[in-house]
Amino acid sequence: MSPGRRLPDLLRRYLPILSWGAEYNRRTAINDLVVAVIVTVMLIPQSLAYAMLAGLPPQVGLYASMAPLLLYAIFGTSRTLAVGPVAVASLMTAAAAGAIAAQGTPEYLGAAVALALISGLLLIAMGVMRLGFLANFLSHPVISGFITASGIQIAASQLAPVLGIAAGGHNLLDLLTDLWRNVGETNLHTAAIGFATLAFLFLVRSRLKPLLLAMGLGARAADTLVKVAPAMAIVATTVAVWAFSLADRGVEIVGVVPQGLPRITLPPLDPALWLSILVPALLIPIVGYVESISVALTLAAKRRQRVDPDQELIALGAANVGSAVSGGFPVTGGFSRSVVNFDAGAETPAAGAFTAVGIALATLFLTPLLFYLPKATLAATIIVAVLTLVDLGALKRTWIYSRADFAAMAATILVTLAVGIEAGLIVGVSLSVFLHLYRTSKPHVATVGQVPGTEHFRNVLRHEVVTDPQILSMRVDESLYFPNARFLEDTINQAVADNPAVRHVILVCPAVNSIDASALESLEAINSRLEDGGITLHLSEVKGPVMDQLKRSHFLEELTGQVHLTQYDAVASINSELAQRTLEAQRSSSSLS
Amino acid sequence: MSPGRRLPDLLRRYLPILSWGAEYNRRTAINDLVVAVIVTVMLIPQSLAYAMLAGLPPQVGLYASMAPLLLYAIFGTSRTLAVGPVAVASLMTAAAAGAIAAQGTPEYLGAAVALALISGLLLIAMGVMRLGFLANFLSHPVISGFITASGIQIAASQLAPVLGIAAGGHNLLDLLTDLWRNVGETNLHTAAIGFATLAFLFLVRSRLKPLLLAMGLGARAADTLVKVAPAMAIVATTVAVWAFSLADRGVEIVGVVPQGLPRITLPPLDPALWLSILVPALLIPIVGYVESISVALTLAAKRRQRVDPDQELIALGAANVGSAVSGGFPVTGGFSRSVVNFDAGAETPAAGAFTAVGIALATLFLTPLLFYLPKATLAATIIVAVLTLVDLGALKRTWIYSRADFAAMAATILVTLAVGIEAGLIVGVSLSVFLHLYRTSKPHVATVGQVPGTEHFRNVLRHEVVTDPQILSMRVDESLYFPNARFLEDTINQAVADNPAVRHVILVCPAVNSIDASALESLEAINSRLEDGGITLHLSEVKGPVMDQLKRSHFLEELTGQVHLTQYDAVASINSELAQRTLEAQRSSSSLS
Repeated sequence: MSPGRRLPDLLRRYLPILSWGAEYNRRTAINDLVVAVIVTVMLIPQSLAYAMLAGLPPQVGLYASMAPLLLYAIFGTSRTLAVGPVAVASLMTAAAAGAIAAQGTPEYLGAAVALALISGLLLIAMGVMRLGFLANFLSHPVISGFITASGIQIAASQLAPVLGIAAGGHNLLDLLTDLWRNVGETNLHTAAIGFATLAFLFLVRSRLKPLLLAMGLGARAADTLVKVAPAMAIVATTVAVWAFSLADRGVEIVGVVPQGLPRITLPPLDPALWLSILVPALLIPIVGYVESISVALTLAAKRRQRVDPDQELIALGAANVGSAVSGGFPVTGGFSRSVVNFDAGAETPAAGAFTAVGIALATLFLTPLLFYLPKATLAATIIVAVLTLVDLGALKRTWIYSRADFAAMAATILVTLAVGIEAGLIVGVSLSVFLHLYRTSKPHVATVGQVPGTEHFRNVLRHEVVTDPQILSMRVDESLYFPNARFLEDTINQAVADNPAVRHVILVCPAVNSIDASALESLEAINSRLEDGGITLHLSEVKGPVMDQLKRSHFLEELTGQVHLTQYDAVASINSELAQRTLEAQRSSSSLS
Repeated sequence: MSPGRRLPDLLRRYLPILSWGAEYNRRTAINDLVVAVIVTVMLIPQSLAYAMLAGLPPQVGLYASMAPLLLYAIFGTSRTLAVGPVAVASLMTAAAAGAIAAQGTPEYLGAAVALALISGLLLIAMGVMRLGFLANFLSHPVISGFITASGIQIAASQLAPVLGIAAGGHNLLDLLTDLWRNVGETNLHTAAIGFATLAFLFLVRSRLKPLLLAMGLGARAADTLVKVAPAMAIVATTVAVWAFSLADRGVEIVGVVPQGLPRITLPPLDPALWLSILVPALLIPIVGYVESISVALTLAAKRRQRVDPDQELIALGAANVGSAVSGGFPVTGGFSRSVVNFDAGAETPAAGAFTAVGIALATLFLTPLLFYLPKATLAATIIVAVLTLVDLGALKRTWIYSRADFAAMAATILVTLAVGIEAGLIVGVSLSVFLHLYRTSKPHVATVGQVPGTEHFRNVLRHEVVTDPQILSMRVDESLYFPNARFLEDTINQAVADNPAVRHVILVCPAVNSIDASALESLEAINSRLEDGGITLHLSEVKGPVMDQLKRSHFLEELTGQVHLTQYDAVASINSELAQRTLEAQRSSSSLS
């Protein structure tokens, strides 16, 4: 490759906009504009609601829905992913910032903004260093359990604004205790608005869509109408509060939302603050990335498009940094907004950029209209949205499929609800890594014998095979690495202690894909221990790459026996050696007599 | 099995003494007694020295060498393992207790005793629950690096008493700084004793043994003499201090060692104390167990004896609990003492019990003789002993063999020396688990094609094979679990985006030993995404146990294609289907025309 071409290639890799932007035309632009109008209508209430869930002023939700969309349009590889505030990340932000300061203080807001900045920088670093595999540490049972628990926790937390009371807590137990204590102070007007909105939204979801379909409306149009329903609820309840002066009767309203675009500012760069939010700042982007990449892959597959997981880290990172410098909080690719974007027919990330413009216009001109918007309505929209995240059936399916995975999922749910969201994630990840290592720590080891009349060797417990009491052949059905290295030592030690006649041990290795330094040490220990006991160790059917690696150690020089190409060769060569010895022994005894 | 037999079986499992005790006779007893005398002479200075290393009064070392030996004789499965204070556990005890209180205070001693108790209880719990595999988390590079770093740290720390100055620190940097600052206060008499002892011990090790061998002494006898050399140094330097009144010239001596056996007491049961030493109390027994079991396995192999790793946990746990209730500190099976025991000809654990009696007699009658023993001598014996632990050559060997294992080893050494021993272990274990997951997160995936004229399918990149543009066959050479589940999604997503003609994807699974819930979820996602793109997913060569597990999910019902017994069947059946379609298409177009 000529040096002159390298820079554009690199640019194209890190700036996917250069690829789709070159083909952009008037038709696509008009299409993307129409999509942006629909998505904007859906995003305004969602942004306000998730800001409230995160314990932040409503405009922060709007701020977090502008710059991120623009930056994702430049750096993102998915054509249809829509980034912005989402439920789980908002809950995590509230938990992390709440540990630093009280809601409503500048420190709280500062912590939320700093979370977005650190998350963003971390994601970019992971993307540049191609560390996307880190997200794999969140196994599916853990992420599924975590999202279910988060959904329950969020729904419960939003009962308080629906009832017009105060209640909080870092876990479900604290929250329910608080709710129970304060339920007597319920504001009936607020509760009326809250429950009416809940009922409306549930009905729209369960009845309106089938009705619209029956009336001959297309599935996509029906879906879009359902997604716009929260906006309708917001208009209706805002008008009701204004018309009947319900704010004077104790209904909490959004109040003044500062008009105008966010100022670009540097987020707080206090090292003590950064250190104190480091753990959530590590967890939020990873959870967000897992959610985002799975949405992106799902949508891309429908149109056979590519998504580059490493570039997605950079794009999501840029979106978060953008959110931070424009006064927003952590964002990620959201499922529902991306699906609306996709279903409405978005063709390029420009639809996202146009949506950002839509939100900016709303922030400039519509915020006075939000003055009378009751918080109970926002809470109700959150509850309806997050209950779709709760999937308790997954517990049963996972139980049937795998007990280890069930344990990881159940532990994540229980600890998240009983202790808190960070503890739940950490316990879940640790347990799933632990169970994985446990599973691989006891590999299947079979003693094998020869199938009579063939060159095949099979498990002595399952087949009629021939064995020689002086030769012990053991097949290991797993790569050899530290979780099972000592197990191999124990297993061979026991087998040899149980078979006093054994003079040769053959390790049959067709399933061994690698041998790490721990396993090498164990093999050396096995070799020298067997030698002390007068037994020769052989290997057979060692794969090429494994043999190459063994050649870089002293093991093959120390090995008392040979490495044989096939198990058949191994047994044949040892048998001929044993026969030779017996012959020599007979000769020497006959010459003595 | 009749209920009447179960209790004795259980007893025999948990009390190995019932097995060897039944065969015990006069000859074995005399033999074990002779061994005990040799080991006792070696153990007295070692016990005093390791107590000093742990920052504890000398008698605590003697206490820790009695009850543990007796209890191991009852519960242990190794015939020749000798338990007691060892260098690394003593260093770890000093670090943990030093974080709680100052040396010489009752709180410091209380923390050391509590460490032994918690370590013991933990080991017993692990043994009963058969959790011995937990020790596998300490991969060989980590434990090897940790022991090397501990050896360096211990040797450096003992330079202070050899010079007669004060110096301390939790890591090598602090320690060296302290030494440098105080080196001006060196006591020349102390240094003379210290360096003379060092020189004597090194000479014995490097010159005396070859000399003795050349004089016709047996290798075992020569080895034993070398091991008894520290006792000779102790006698000589103690006499010198007494004869020349060197204590008056500033040579620090052991002083009054309380005479008499330890009282059985309950260790401190303060929950706050227990909580504050929990991390070291988890690390000390696991490191100790790894050392102990590897010594036990090595010695057992030489005589083809059995060692039960789970029962060893119980025995080591009992030894630590015994140490704690008799006022001692954490103990484990030591390498050098076990080898002496073995080489001297110990036949049963009774030799250990007799050694305990020997130490008890010494504690009762010989402690006044230790009054003038200079601490510099003890420090010198420690330095000589621990320098054998340092194996920097392992770094080079590991570098050549595996870069990932080298990284884990180097990180363990560096963090241990620069930060501290607990940090070093934790970083090492985390890094080795992380690198292991990383390695398995990108399994080898090959696109395969048919070898012409055969039923075999091979990697398209390495062999001349035939492929059909409509069929994509991918072979995964690894079990499918959470570290690589998402990688599989990405890989298939990319492959399909790169091959627009593909109508069928076949996953070839002969190397897949298991599919966990995360991978199942990924397979379901792959299946439904491919379906969205108009592509059918098939599986071939699925192993029996994997198939059984898949049947417990809904995946096989959702699968758009089939599960084929062999890859050949898969391609054949898809080809006949494709041919049928083409035929139908031709027919319908010809009927239209």
